[in-house]
Amino acid sequence: MPDRTYPQYSTRYPLLLKTFMKRPVALYPDQIGLVYRNPFTAEYHRFTWMQWFKRTCRLAKVLKKLGIYPGKAGEPGDRVGTMALNTHRHMELYYAVPCSGAMLHCINVRLAMDHIVYTIKHAEDKVIFFDDALLPLVEAIYDQIKDVVRLFVYMSDRPGLPQTKIKSLYVYEELLAEVDEEFTWPDLDEDTYATLCYTTATTGLPKGAMFTHRALYLQTLHLIALGQFSNDPANPHLGESAVPMITTPMFHIHAWGAPFTAVFSAVKIVLPGTFTVDGFCDLVQTEKVTNVAVVPTILALLLEYRDLDKYDLSSLLAVGVGGGALPLGLKEKIEKKIPGVRATSGYGMTETAPVTVFSFLKRHMREWPAEEQDKIRVKTGLAVPGLEVEVFDSDGAPVPRDNQTIGEIVVRGPWVMEKYYKNPEKTAEVWHDGWFHTGDLATTDSQGYLTIADRMSDIIRSGSEMVPTVLLENLASTADFVLEAAVVGVPDKVWGEKAMAVVKIMPGSKKGAEDLIAFLMAEGVNKGKITKWMLPKLVAIVDDIPKTSVGKFSKRDIRKQIDQFLAKALEV
Amino acid sequence: MPDRTYPQYSTRYPLLLKTFMKRPVALYPDQIGLVYRNPFTAEYHRFTWMQWFKRTCRLAKVLKKLGIYPGKAGEPGDRVGTMALNTHRHMELYYAVPCSGAMLHCINVRLAMDHIVYTIKHAEDKVIFFDDALLPLVEAIYDQIKDVVRLFVYMSDRPGLPQTKIKSLYVYEELLAEVDEEFTWPDLDEDTYATLCYTTATTGLPKGAMFTHRALYLQTLHLIALGQFSNDPANPHLGESAVPMITTPMFHIHAWGAPFTAVFSAVKIVLPGTFTVDGFCDLVQTEKVTNVAVVPTILALLLEYRDLDKYDLSSLLAVGVGGGALPLGLKEKIEKKIPGVRATSGYGMTETAPVTVFSFLKRHMREWPAEEQDKIRVKTGLAVPGLEVEVFDSDGAPVPRDNQTIGEIVVRGPWVMEKYYKNPEKTAEVWHDGWFHTGDLATTDSQGYLTIADRMSDIIRSGSEMVPTVLLENLASTADFVLEAAVVGVPDKVWGEKAMAVVKIMPGSKKGAEDLIAFLMAEGVNKGKITKWMLPKLVAIVDDIPKTSVGKFSKRDIRKQIDQFLAKALEV
Repeated sequence: MPDRTYPQYSTRYPLLLKTFMKRPVALYPDQIGLVYRNPFTAEYHRFTWMQWFKRTCRLAKVLKKLGIYPGKAGEPGDRVGTMALNTHRHMELYYAVPCSGAMLHCINVRLAMDHIVYTIKHAEDKVIFFDDALLPLVEAIYDQIKDVVRLFVYMSDRPGLPQTKIKSLYVYEELLAEVDEEFTWPDLDEDTYATLCYTTATTGLPKGAMFTHRALYLQTLHLIALGQFSNDPANPHLGESAVPMITTPMFHIHAWGAPFTAVFSAVKIVLPGTFTVDGFCDLVQTEKVTNVAVVPTILALLLEYRDLDKYDLSSLLAVGVGGGALPLGLKEKIEKKIPGVRATSGYGMTETAPVTVFSFLKRHMREWPAEEQDKIRVKTGLAVPGLEVEVFDSDGAPVPRDNQTIGEIVVRGPWVMEKYYKNPEKTAEVWHDGWFHTGDLATTDSQGYLTIADRMSDIIRSGSEMVPTVLLENLASTADFVLEAAVVGVPDKVWGEKAMAVVKIMPGSKKGAEDLIAFLMAEGVNKGKITKWMLPKLVAIVDDIPKTSVGKFSKRDIRKQIDQFLAKALEV
Repeated sequence: MPDRTYPQYSTRYPLLLKTFMKRPVALYPDQIGLVYRNPFTAEYHRFTWMQWFKRTCRLAKVLKKLGIYPGKAGEPGDRVGTMALNTHRHMELYYAVPCSGAMLHCINVRLAMDHIVYTIKHAEDKVIFFDDALLPLVEAIYDQIKDVVRLFVYMSDRPGLPQTKIKSLYVYEELLAEVDEEFTWPDLDEDTYATLCYTTATTGLPKGAMFTHRALYLQTLHLIALGQFSNDPANPHLGESAVPMITTPMFHIHAWGAPFTAVFSAVKIVLPGTFTVDGFCDLVQTEKVTNVAVVPTILALLLEYRDLDKYDLSSLLAVGVGGGALPLGLKEKIEKKIPGVRATSGYGMTETAPVTVFSFLKRHMREWPAEEQDKIRVKTGLAVPGLEVEVFDSDGAPVPRDNQTIGEIVVRGPWVMEKYYKNPEKTAEVWHDGWFHTGDLATTDSQGYLTIADRMSDIIRSGSEMVPTVLLENLASTADFVLEAAVVGVPDKVWGEKAMAVVKIMPGSKKGAEDLIAFLMAEGVNKGKITKWMLPKLVAIVDDIPKTSVGKFSKRDIRKQIDQFLAKALEV
């Protein structure tokens, strides 16, 4: 290793998140950097970059005062838990915690309560910062975590403390007011752990993926490069004119990277607290939001919203869709409803920090007709620059690029997690033979685009064949009477498993199960997109499809309540 | 340090140049990646990305066969010298040498002959790859280097070997033809040295700045980020539609980064061999070149070119100007001559790989009148994202942002060189107190923009005052009758030094020394840009101003021949 002490900061100049934080403060100290709309009061709060930076400096001082210790390479610092929505305070924690050397654990408050308790105890969070809106949740789990968590900090727009049984409770704004704003951000080793992110655990217990400053820095730079390389009109170059709204919860795997890319880009960041359709529309209109990243469900919620037409959403241009496949039908419907918008598919997971694959057009596709381009944009996509992504068969060889052979997506690169926290067994399951194994199944086409076929655990095995459920779901969603469609396997005496479609119909439509099968025959089988044996044998029309905490269809919950769904299902 | 062997490539996934090389090959194997125009025959050579990659694989195999050994972190591999112009073969060497673990030494063939010999012997180049056009130069120095350099490789578009005294001479194309194209690029440590770049040595001997894969990777990513952040119309976002021409010689400090940014961006790269005005115009017209980076001299040469109007140069949009200040007058003249073009100033040096500062507009300046924007674009600029750049006074404190206090530019960041090769003394002179000291003097304005005032060694000390020569040169160049102007200090009995202007007049103009002083009075003194005592006391009208090998005014050469210039000078 080259000597780091002299000359200082040359070859080994550390890649640290503080570099991102300092850029907008240096360039635009007096311009508005963060806009937070409290979703409960509809009040707006605006902060210049300098105001936000000074608050973040104060917070770092508070962390020191509270006895939070920094870590070093290979040795995690104290874990700081957050139970917080997308607020300016959460953005302060996003920088103050890792940049002072501690480890940020954004607790996923949408997990089942026993999983929330598990992650807090597993992480051994020394302190938890929580929003006033989440007080009931903290109280509900308090008795189970109070022996682990030493301190609690209450974050609210209103002064003072609530009546509560929680002990050792401080008020965020009071703590900040008690210290001054002079703080020297340490020169950490770039391999210092910055964040701890638990998986949503569709099977088993949540696992804690660990990320270093270096990993998050490099993910950010490569995502920025992806924007610079692309010239797909669906992702117009906005540069410093971009106004991103962080719609993805900040307790979901770095809100898909936005808190880092947006701060380094020095663009105005819009924070909605939590997603509500009216809050979303109000913020887009008021702040002239240009881009958002959402799960497909959000698009379905917008489509259902009766007052959508009352808002001016014309500033909104680019919608990145992840956390589930982007069905072509859903894309077409939302683009018809909000004409300026172009939706594009992406893919990632907790362990990949998360961005891995994005469906950008290749150069020669820019001349293609719009419909052909859209077929590309709903594919899962191509590897983000700088990352190696392959689809491997069971022997660890790449599958043929035939758009039909299914294999497992494997990944490696500068921002893929090194290991799970205190869990060498699970780490060894996913990291072997030089690749991180995602457990997601996909095909690749002749141009190299991936299309997700299924989670390995969700695939339907019918006879010796595998039914790619995501393909069926995407196809079903192109029917104008379908709002959402999930496909799961149910036991079958002859074939082992058969496919059941669980469908939510568009409000106002009178169509049903037979119409769905007729549609899948006409648009799928007759056009060669699927074969007849893949057709669902059962169709259940429902009011709601169970979802995970991140808004994906929860096939585990469907399977848990399978009798309920079977009761509603018609054989077709 | 985290364990690197298992799980493989996670936190410590290495940042290597091979990642850049593989991207266009994966995306666009069959699209044209490189276009080389032989400047002597005017023949065009076109290569798809796959063709170029396969040739590069062959070259890596050849290097192995020739006994070139790879290095590791902290321990340089064998040095491979190139004496080559901007050709596809040089681009092959740019990747095959570092990506196989050896160290690329691009010999600056425009140095004085004794300095060329010095750098080869100091680097201990094991092999030198040279272009046919440079055979006479290699022959001229052959006797002085033949004991150090074991092998020579001759690169030409024509088959066979020339008559020459050079022993151990191979033909590039024959070597490539003798091996197959299967090559596994090694997984090097990212701290493996990739390049060795010697300074042009305006004083003393050239010094060899060493760069690792990591440093070059990170410079590239941050330059790409600069493009993504900016939305100055002077640097339009072209994404994959960009067609850069590498005009800066590839033996000048990584051709300012273009061989790395352009390959990773997967855009068509245009290579002119060497700069000629007609070759430049022919390539812009034929290949629809969109951007170039040049020294100011090139702009002066284009302005002088009589046939310029015969070419369609309308594709050319962005001209980055470095290696010397961009005078506002020169910018205005070239933009008038080629109407689509917008020229912008940048700054860097060998030791910073080189890009350090670039004059991008801030967000709120986009609404400014064009003339006000142009005043920003000719400032030296703001730090490139990710780099720390300061202007320090002699006590190591930042100078006030008053646009007049002069201090030294200091830099640190991920791509600043760690050290000079085999030269700890010179390393200690430039790297101390945690900063790399550039030896360049500048002022900063209230918005943080730097403006270069002088090299420390070029500043004129008149009484107790310092005359900022670059300011005078820029002002003089705004006169429509001035093509180029340099200002140097000459001894003066009373003041110690006084300023002499050395001026090249626009072709066809009859103006002279008195007109220059009148202009500087009217536009400089009377408008408060300079004070009267700064005015040159002598003006020499000349046919040519001596330049360094990189196209900057060579004040050392002017001072060496000072009697000649004094003989031509008029007292004013």
